[in-house]
Amino acid sequence: MRATILHAPGDVRVEERAKPTIQNPTDAIIKVTAACVCGSDLWPYRGADSVAEPVPMGHEYVGIVDEVGAVVKNVKVGQFVIGSFFASDNTCEICQSGYQSSCVHREGVGGAQAEYMRIPLADGTLVATAELPEANKIASLLAASDVLGTGWFGAVAAEVGPGKTVAVVGDGAVGLLAILAAKQLGATRIIAMSRHEARQKLAREFGASDIVKERGDAGVAKIRELTDGLGAHCVIEAVGTQESMMQAIRSTRPGGHVGYVGVSHDVDLPGLELFFSHVHLHGGPAPVRDYLPHLIELILNGTINPGLVFDLELPLEDAAEGYRAMDERRAIKALLRP
Amino acid sequence: MRATILHAPGDVRVEERAKPTIQNPTDAIIKVTAACVCGSDLWPYRGADSVAEPVPMGHEYVGIVDEVGAVVKNVKVGQFVIGSFFASDNTCEICQSGYQSSCVHREGVGGAQAEYMRIPLADGTLVATAELPEANKIASLLAASDVLGTGWFGAVAAEVGPGKTVAVVGDGAVGLLAILAAKQLGATRIIAMSRHEARQKLAREFGASDIVKERGDAGVAKIRELTDGLGAHCVIEAVGTQESMMQAIRSTRPGGHVGYVGVSHDVDLPGLELFFSHVHLHGGPAPVRDYLPHLIELILNGTINPGLVFDLELPLEDAAEGYRAMDERRAIKALLRP
Repeated sequence: MRATILHAPGDVRVEERAKPTIQNPTDAIIKVTAACVCGSDLWPYRGADSVAEPVPMGHEYVGIVDEVGAVVKNVKVGQFVIGSFFASDNTCEICQSGYQSSCVHREGVGGAQAEYMRIPLADGTLVATAELPEANKIASLLAASDVLGTGWFGAVAAEVGPGKTVAVVGDGAVGLLAILAAKQLGATRIIAMSRHEARQKLAREFGASDIVKERGDAGVAKIRELTDGLGAHCVIEAVGTQESMMQAIRSTRPGGHVGYVGVSHDVDLPGLELFFSHVHLHGGPAPVRDYLPHLIELILNGTINPGLVFDLELPLEDAAEGYRAMDERRAIKALLRP
Repeated sequence: MRATILHAPGDVRVEERAKPTIQNPTDAIIKVTAACVCGSDLWPYRGADSVAEPVPMGHEYVGIVDEVGAVVKNVKVGQFVIGSFFASDNTCEICQSGYQSSCVHREGVGGAQAEYMRIPLADGTLVATAELPEANKIASLLAASDVLGTGWFGAVAAEVGPGKTVAVVGDGAVGLLAILAAKQLGATRIIAMSRHEARQKLAREFGASDIVKERGDAGVAKIRELTDGLGAHCVIEAVGTQESMMQAIRSTRPGGHVGYVGVSHDVDLPGLELFFSHVHLHGGPAPVRDYLPHLIELILNGTINPGLVFDLELPLEDAAEGYRAMDERRAIKALLRP
């Protein structure tokens, strides 16, 4: 089969690999309908994460079940399924508390930018739709697999709700979908921090009421200006750098909540400033599995259209162009069709 | 009047100072009934915080109102009052949300280890009792002024409640009273981390069900052993060092809550570890004012006896001995009587 492999920073190739096989009786093999390039795939692509050996890429996927292990009972061959970047049993105490991405049996899921992929712990990881979805829903269901679920967790972690003023740091797919999530969760006012016109437009379409172009200290000052000098109730951090984390913390009022979902790279939080900021801090890898049934319902009944974040669609063979376009910020997010 | 002044690290003196006077119409002057030495007073005493000039010490107090400014209406001359280390208006949006210690008009309160002290924003800061309390309640009411309120905030920030397993890092007065708070808030199991016998005894008296003597990595391993390998639901951090913060974060299960109330000194939290820990983090200076009415009620009706943390009582003149005893860990907490 054809699969996307990262050989070194900047060196992505689509090449022939063996089709994955069932390794454990809890596995499933799926034929990938669509996959995509994630902002976090750019970390190793840009050399910010090391690449010791050629790595099969991709962890966002929707597809058709091709084969199941002996004990798999929740999904069947031929069903359309959506999963996430961590496999989880969905039964342990941590899963049951809503933190499937820290499941005690957690396994990473990879190699989604390919024709086929193996899903460990298929019963706890995959969610099947009742019927094969219409073609125009595929992109949105694919978004649910990571970026929508991650933006949603950011909003939940920031305790977004009615009456709340929300600020979102980061205008990538996750930040944009955090805006959509905040809107769905009933936020009264949503401030998008973005300096890119196309992204500002999408932010408004997803529910942003205000746009702040400034970043860093100037961005913080602007947020305070818009919130009677107090800061936002809820701030969602969707970048993962020192600057974006501090921007998020400083944009939050005392007693307010920061939900952070950007994968922290070279971030060190100064204890004394955090102490006196009085903010709540919560985040990490999103428990997408917990939200999937609800998100799938919202997509299939037409309430939300998160697939709008895909502004580039390519055949799998052109995966390298997808990486380049996102790296150069020519595309928000690239969808790949095997 | 007599007042306690820190001249340099290790150099505490009780000397003659002018009696404070009303400076703003919102001020009150109180005659201090009892004050005490705080764990945080030890930071400058030990040279961990710099001492640029002689500083009047003390921020924990109960006393009798001696004089009020022109607009003060909630407290009257002759009333017994309890306050806290930050003055707050108790009316701004931040105060109303329960974060009086980040009040938009916040002012520090100091010089409590003296015969008289000035309280800014008296109406929002002081809480009067209906009658003069009995002598045997003074120590407990004094504890409410900071260490009890701070331990209580730690428990609230860690989301302690029924069904929860709670671990407490730190066996100073705040840590011990966090145990009392956790018990009052309905925790099912309370693990005290302490290696000092007298403090372990008090921990048990306040409600601890388990004692862990180990600290650092060994302490974390022990907490995991006691919690099916998962970590505690709620961890209260009451020290404020890098080691204690990491011990708290690592002792918490994914999705669990760390409430931190030790004043962070030289603490830097590693972003990536925090991200994957999946913990909630909240803390800072305790909004003691928010809890005072409830805590005073629990003390006066005999439900709690937080004054047990005072294991040394001295006349104000001997304040220096109080500092020495706490610095050398001969005393948990020293009460001073002017």
